[in-house]
Amino acid sequence: MAVYTPVSETDIALAAALYGLTPPVTLKPIAEGVENSNYLLEHVGGKAILTLYEQRVRTEDLPFFLGLMQHLASHGIPCPLPMQPKGDSLVIQLAGKSAAMVTFLQGKSTTRIQPWHCAALGQHLAAMHLAAADFSLTRENALSMHSWRPLWEAVKIKAAEAWPHAVELVEAQLASLEKNWPQHLPTGIIHADLFPDNVFYEGERLSGLIDFYFACRDMLAYDLAICLNAWCFETNTEFNITRSQRMLEAYTAKRPLSKAEQEAFPVLCRGAAMRFLLTRMTDWLNPKPGAIVTPKNPLDYLARLKFHATAESFSAYGLTS
Amino acid sequence: MAVYTPVSETDIALAAALYGLTPPVTLKPIAEGVENSNYLLEHVGGKAILTLYEQRVRTEDLPFFLGLMQHLASHGIPCPLPMQPKGDSLVIQLAGKSAAMVTFLQGKSTTRIQPWHCAALGQHLAAMHLAAADFSLTRENALSMHSWRPLWEAVKIKAAEAWPHAVELVEAQLASLEKNWPQHLPTGIIHADLFPDNVFYEGERLSGLIDFYFACRDMLAYDLAICLNAWCFETNTEFNITRSQRMLEAYTAKRPLSKAEQEAFPVLCRGAAMRFLLTRMTDWLNPKPGAIVTPKNPLDYLARLKFHATAESFSAYGLTS
Repeated sequence: MAVYTPVSETDIALAAALYGLTPPVTLKPIAEGVENSNYLLEHVGGKAILTLYEQRVRTEDLPFFLGLMQHLASHGIPCPLPMQPKGDSLVIQLAGKSAAMVTFLQGKSTTRIQPWHCAALGQHLAAMHLAAADFSLTRENALSMHSWRPLWEAVKIKAAEAWPHAVELVEAQLASLEKNWPQHLPTGIIHADLFPDNVFYEGERLSGLIDFYFACRDMLAYDLAICLNAWCFETNTEFNITRSQRMLEAYTAKRPLSKAEQEAFPVLCRGAAMRFLLTRMTDWLNPKPGAIVTPKNPLDYLARLKFHATAESFSAYGLTS
Repeated sequence: MAVYTPVSETDIALAAALYGLTPPVTLKPIAEGVENSNYLLEHVGGKAILTLYEQRVRTEDLPFFLGLMQHLASHGIPCPLPMQPKGDSLVIQLAGKSAAMVTFLQGKSTTRIQPWHCAALGQHLAAMHLAAADFSLTRENALSMHSWRPLWEAVKIKAAEAWPHAVELVEAQLASLEKNWPQHLPTGIIHADLFPDNVFYEGERLSGLIDFYFACRDMLAYDLAICLNAWCFETNTEFNITRSQRMLEAYTAKRPLSKAEQEAFPVLCRGAAMRFLLTRMTDWLNPKPGAIVTPKNPLDYLARLKFHATAESFSAYGLTS
C-alpha cells in the first residue's frame, strides 16, 4: 500500500488514548496495498494495524467492512479483529481521516506459491463463505459485471494506444460476458480481492486473511474464480493445473459446487480476469501523483482472459465434476 | 475438565442453528479442566469450543468472563473469542445449562516446561494486564486472601488426619499472610489461574491463553506470583530459578514492577501457594462423585509455601531489583 496520510505525534497519542494502549506507542508505515494508509502500531502490550481510509473507501461502507471482520473472526476465520475504541463506533477520526485499528496477525504472505498454499486457501475461502452466511449487513459489488463496460469506455482510447492488440479481444469478451453472465447462482458475502498479498501463512498453516475492503455480495463461485486467477498462474502467465486442482478440491470439500456453478465456472473465470484487466488498465493509464506503488501490469490478466476463453468446461480446471 | 453434562443430537442442532453453523456438526468431549463441560465442536466451516457452565461458575459472572475474552481478543491477546449467537446475549441455554461458544485456538499446552515458555508467558501476562486496564466490567476475587481462613477452617479436621505435618505450617503462614498481605499495590483484571494447562504454544510461539473463569480484580503482581508457582518448580517441587528469571524479565520488560511490588513479591508468592494448597486440600478431601478428573496433590503446594517462606527478598526469584 502507499502511505498517503502522515500521522503526527499528537495523532498517535490520541489513538493510544482512544484504544487504551500503554505508551510508548510507535508507528511504522506499511508500504503494501493500494487503497488505504496502513501503519504497524507497536505499544507496550503488543502490535496492531492502524488504517486511515483514503478516498477509494467510502466512509458509509466502514460499518460493513469492520462488522464483517468482527463477524468472521468470531466464527473462527483467521482475520483481523477490529478493536473497540472508547465510544460506540468502531471508526475514529485521525489526521482528518476516518480510521480504524485492528489486531495484528502472525504470519507472512508467500512469494513462492506451492500447491498446498492453494489448498489451504480453498479451504479457508469456503469456510469464510459459510461463516459469512448469517452476517446481517450487505454491500453491492461496485466492480460487478455491470461496471466493466463503463470502465472500458473510460480507458478505451488510451488503452488502444498502449495495447493495440488487446482491443479486439476485450470488446469481444465484454460482449460475450454481458450475454452469458450467470444470473441465478448462489450469492453471499465474498472477499473479492483474495490475492497472495492478502493471505498470511505461518509454517504450514494459513494464519490470516486480510484486506476486506472490496468485500461485497456477489456469486460465491465468482470469489473462487478470482482466487483461481490470482493464485493458479505462473509468473510467465502459464496456467498451473496442480494448484487449481488443489484449490478446487479443498474448496468443494467444504462447499460443494452445484452443477450450475460448475457449468458457469469458465465464464466466471473470464469475468474475474476481465475485472482485474480493466482496473489494472485504469490504474496503469492514470498513475496517481505521489503514490509509492507501481501499477501492476494489466497484460498478465489479458493472458488469463485468453486462457479462460479456451476452457470448454469445468474439467479444464483440474477437477472432474 | 470433567465432562459432566451430556449433549444430545437435538442440542447440537439447536446450537448449530443459533450460531449459523453449516452441518454436519459433531461434538467431542474434552476431558481437561475441572470447572465446566467442554466440547470440541466441528462444523463444515471449522472448529469451535462449546462450554456448558457447571455449578462452580455463577451465571451472573458470565457477562464478565465472556466480555473480558472479547475485550482481550480485540486487543490482540491470543485468547478465545466468544461467538455471537442469534439475539443480544453471548450466553445460550443448552441441555438445561447456560452455555457459550468460543473460537478454537491453534496450539497445545506444554508438558515439558522450558525457560522460553516462561519468558513467553511473562510477556503475554504483562500484555494481558495492560490490555485489560480499560475493560469496563469487574468481578471480586472469590478466592482472595480473605477466603483462605474459612477454607482452612472447613478442611482443618480432615486435613490434620491426612497431613498432620502440614497443620502447623499452614496455621503459622495463614496468620503471617493475614498480617502482612499488601494493601496498596496496583490492581487490575488478573487471570488468576494461568497454569500450563491453560497456555498453548505453536512452534516457538505462545498461541493461546484460555480458561478465564477465575479472572477477577486483584493485585497484578499476585497474578505473576500465581504463574511463578505454577511454572517455575520442577516435578520434584524444586525451584527452577532460570525459569523464574526469564518469566520476571519478560514480564517487567512490558510492565515494570514498582519498589513496593518487588518488596511484597515473596509474600504474594506465599499467598499464591496458600490459595492453591487450600483449594487442592478441599478438592482432595471432598472428591466429587462421577468426576473424571483425579484431584491434584496438595503437597506440591505445601513444598512451594515452604520455599517462599525462606525467600528473603525479590532477588530470591532471580532478578535483581
